[in-house]
Amino acid sequence: MGHLRYLTAGESHGPGLTVIVEGLPFGVPLEAHDINPDLSRRQGGYGRGGRMKIERDLAEIRSGVRHGITLGSPITLLIENRDWANWGEKMSVEPIDAEIPPVTKPRPGHADLAGMIKYGTNDLRNILERSSARETTARVAAGAIARKFLSELGIQIRSRTARIGSVPDEPELDPSKPSTWPWDAVEASPVRAITPNQAEAMVEEIDSARENGTTLGGIFEVVAWNVPVGLGSHVHWDRKLDAKLTQAIVSINAVKGCRDRSSLRKRWRARS
Amino acid sequence: MGHLRYLTAGESHGPGLTVIVEGLPFGVPLEAHDINPDLSRRQGGYGRGGRMKIERDLAEIRSGVRHGITLGSPITLLIENRDWANWGEKMSVEPIDAEIPPVTKPRPGHADLAGMIKYGTNDLRNILERSSARETTARVAAGAIARKFLSELGIQIRSRTARIGSVPDEPELDPSKPSTWPWDAVEASPVRAITPNQAEAMVEEIDSARENGTTLGGIFEVVAWNVPVGLGSHVHWDRKLDAKLTQAIVSINAVKGCRDRSSLRKRWRARS
Amino acid sequence: MGHLRYLTAGESHGPGLTVIVEGLPFGVPLEAHDINPDLSRRQGGYGRGGRMKIERDLAEIRSGVRHGITLGSPITLLIENRDWANWGEKMSVEPIDAEIPPVTKPRPGHADLAGMIKYGTNDLRNILERSSARETTARVAAGAIARKFLSELGIQIRSRTARIGSVPDEPELDPSKPSTWPWDAVEASPVRAITPNQAEAMVEEIDSARENGTTLGGIFEVVAWNVPVGLGSHVHWDRKLDAKLTQAIVSINAVKGCRDRSSLRKRWRARS
Amino acid sequence: MGHLRYLTAGESHGPGLTVIVEGLPFGVPLEAHDINPDLSRRQGGYGRGGRMKIERDLAEIRSGVRHGITLGSPITLLIENRDWANWGEKMSVEPIDAEIPPVTKPRPGHADLAGMIKYGTNDLRNILERSSARETTARVAAGAIARKFLSELGIQIRSRTARIGSVPDEPELDPSKPSTWPWDAVEASPVRAITPNQAEAMVEEIDSARENGTTLGGIFEVVAWNVPVGLGSHVHWDRKLDAKLTQAIVSINAVKGCRDRSSLRKRWRARS
Repeated sequence: MGHLRYLTAGESHGPGLTVIVEGLPFGVPLEAHDINPDLSRRQGGYGRGGRMKIERDLAEIRSGVRHGITLGSPITLLIENRDWANWGEKMSVEPIDAEIPPVTKPRPGHADLAGMIKYGTNDLRNILERSSARETTARVAAGAIARKFLSELGIQIRSRTARIGSVPDEPELDPSKPSTWPWDAVEASPVRAITPNQAEAMVEEIDSARENGTTLGGIFEVVAWNVPVGLGSHVHWDRKLDAKLTQAIVSINAVKGCRDRSSLRKRWRARS
Repeated sequence: MGHLRYLTAGESHGPGLTVIVEGLPFGVPLEAHDINPDLSRRQGGYGRGGRMKIERDLAEIRSGVRHGITLGSPITLLIENRDWANWGEKMSVEPIDAEIPPVTKPRPGHADLAGMIKYGTNDLRNILERSSARETTARVAAGAIARKFLSELGIQIRSRTARIGSVPDEPELDPSKPSTWPWDAVEASPVRAITPNQAEAMVEEIDSARENGTTLGGIFEVVAWNVPVGLGSHVHWDRKLDAKLTQAIVSINAVKGCRDRSSLRKRWRARS
Repeated sequence: MGHLRYLTAGESHGPGLTVIVEGLPFGVPLEAHDINPDLSRRQGGYGRGGRMKIERDLAEIRSGVRHGITLGSPITLLIENRDWANWGEKMSVEPIDAEIPPVTKPRPGHADLAGMIKYGTNDLRNILERSSARETTARVAAGAIARKFLSELGIQIRSRTARIGSVPDEPELDPSKPSTWPWDAVEASPVRAITPNQAEAMVEEIDSARENGTTLGGIFEVVAWNVPVGLGSHVHWDRKLDAKLTQAIVSINAVKGCRDRSSLRKRWRARS
Repeated sequence: MGHLRYLTAGESHGPGLTVIVEGLPFGVPLEAHDINPDLSRRQGGYGRGGRMKIERDLAEIRSGVRHGITLGSPITLLIENRDWANWGEKMSVEPIDAEIPPVTKPRPGHADLAGMIKYGTNDLRNILERSSARETTARVAAGAIARKFLSELGIQIRSRTARIGSVPDEPELDPSKPSTWPWDAVEASPVRAITPNQAEAMVEEIDSARENGTTLGGIFEVVAWNVPVGLGSHVHWDRKLDAKLTQAIVSINAVKGCRDRSSLRKRWRARS
């Protein structure tokens, strides 16, 4: 087996998303039901917008698996955009006769402005359709394949929300035994908190933030166990595991924020 | 723009083929009709087998293009396997109840035997479905996108059959002016010969070989013009253009042969 | 020109460091004096240990440059380890007769323990010689080449210490005009502060921390200007500039810390 | 262990060659005497030019090895150019005062002309110093490291000259048992022939070609045994072993020729 690699594709309101995962060995059990729960988890979350209800994301395996077992060949996943019917003209692959009014107002903190200048387009839709949280759906699907493969080797990966706003983390978790943490409670919680108390406090803080027209930051924790010692390497900068994980995380649009927004705003004002 | 990269996926008798091409810039005109003629050309050829008639390959663009113009984002192409309906059980992605008899007889000169040993499977179908000429369809589709992009820069690429068996090459072509060669004649010829005389002689030789139950080798020529001087690089082994082109060509299964088959057969006999 | 890539090599107490930088175009003015100031800057810093005084790092260009101009070919830099004479036996490349006592006590927060287990060695020196801040010297040298190339395109890169411990950042910097900031003051400051007041406060805090046997965190800022809009890309996760920069930064050993050390210590205690 | 990668550097008449090999695991015995015989073999050959006598290439290991054992870290090899003393001014890394007359006559079949146009230089030396057979020295050194590693796994690699000019291959070799072939005879032969008879005939043909002011083509054979079944992969074009080997071989300048030189010459004449 070589190393795993993958490409994701698909616009936010295009026909759908595609991901090809190359490098998985022969013989791993894999079915759509190994992937779809992760897609559902991505769509959960207290206070998520309306689109999440439109789309019940489902992955269709189109290659690389036969009779429920991987073939060692590239795995294709298709995920339909269920709202596509409403976007056929605006997002038509083919040229159309109609005039579509361009989207022209770049949002701060997004790729909009840089993209417009780089591509020389006056229609933001040409940028925002790909620079979109929807793209992470394809990455979640690819990740579900990796997670399934790792589970065959006994490696488990779980995640939880450790903090939202001012709600503190649960102090009683034994960090030496993450496998004993109440992960079912996390999965059942609308905010992925590890106790009902924490969940309740988080929901309250979200409600209050929404009333005040603001948003909240937070901390999530991803835990893996049964991981062999020495993954990654200390010998060359681009093989270091922590640096690679950080790249993957920082590449998610919504994961970044600014600790001191007022300072950012001040800086932006100064620039204009 | 970064460099172009792509992944192909799909089994020979699975639901279809997929290719994601990443790295094309924004603003290139691209429609399915830029790709489909190359898929048809791949399916032509005098003496091709029955499958070629089943499948009229057509590419569907699923991402990366809006209103006929590339978005700079990854381009997905889907190509259905039209014969898929007949293979639903043998090649089912999901587990099935029925017992499918395994394919157990490895063909010499193929990946069959090495694949069976490597994967520990007794069903050759697990190997041959991917180690198949069908896979080149996805590469031809990816190549058509590259060709379209290059044509926007004025670069033209053409190919022809220079020799089949003992039929010699046409001597009268002016090598300094490939743009003046009769490429329409090549496209019209069942063997992609550049003159009717050459075509006729090639067809005769093929017919005769078929009668004798043997096959023929040949030479094809790929020509590009308006190419900027200095593509590739002499400074590091893995940036040399001739070496990269050779890798791409040798990665095509059918392109390799053995000049002295009797010697090969003798060697194989010696091993067993 | 393709993309730039580089490999660094060299143990902390071996004969020296080597870096090969591949991908720079032909025609860039480059001499050792373009690289050495960056090596010196790396060796500065208030309160740095004794080794920094031993080594005045100097880069020797061994390839890729002719008459002060890059050739487009790979550039080799050698940086001697000036202390090598004292390490000839402990770090001998060749087998030696003497018994060298192994280093056996892994340091927390380092690659020591994981490395020992991964490699099955009982001598930590086999790990720590490469997992060392010394390795960054080679990266600084590679970075100096990149910086020189970028400066030919008008792109400027500067850095400063924005915070150390509780000393706040200077509030009066105009974020819209980094080119006007007093960079000479930064270069002259032992802590790379942008004003003498800030520098004085930082030095005091460092002295006080040292007396208390503890260390301090901080924030550094790297600023670039004249950068073209749209570097990186929003279209695929592994082309995003912020994520790539983060990987590069997190790959530096000393750059990572733990906001809540007492919690970390508690966790570690819980594990043992 | 990840995959092996390496960068080579060094001009033909510069201070020397450097190669960094990254990805070798910890614990492989490696000393200069594992590398130098391969460098000597590269310098052998009946009828090689004068330079081969000047340079007795010797590799110095500068990193990645301690006490004769690899550390898992990048391995640096330096190979001095022994003729460097005579080239200090022409190939000075630093700017010089003297005027060096440029080399202005591009050789057919070389990178000279394309390089001059690409780089916009009128001094061919800026191209030919890197586009030179000398560069393969660094690759041979890197290959010697790989060969040593493979030999630890029981894999053996040997090569011989199968044909030169019209001298036929030895018919009596048992292709099923390459380990029994007389490899010592090959190493002793000035043309790396496998029998004295074949060697004598080849030497005669070379002498005769030299007298006639022409050159000869040939065929070499590289054989490996104890190789595990299934190296490479059939699942994606860029993982196919035959294609990767071909890229590596075709990237060697001298390995390519033209079967029908008169036709090439005719074509070139037609172009001008």
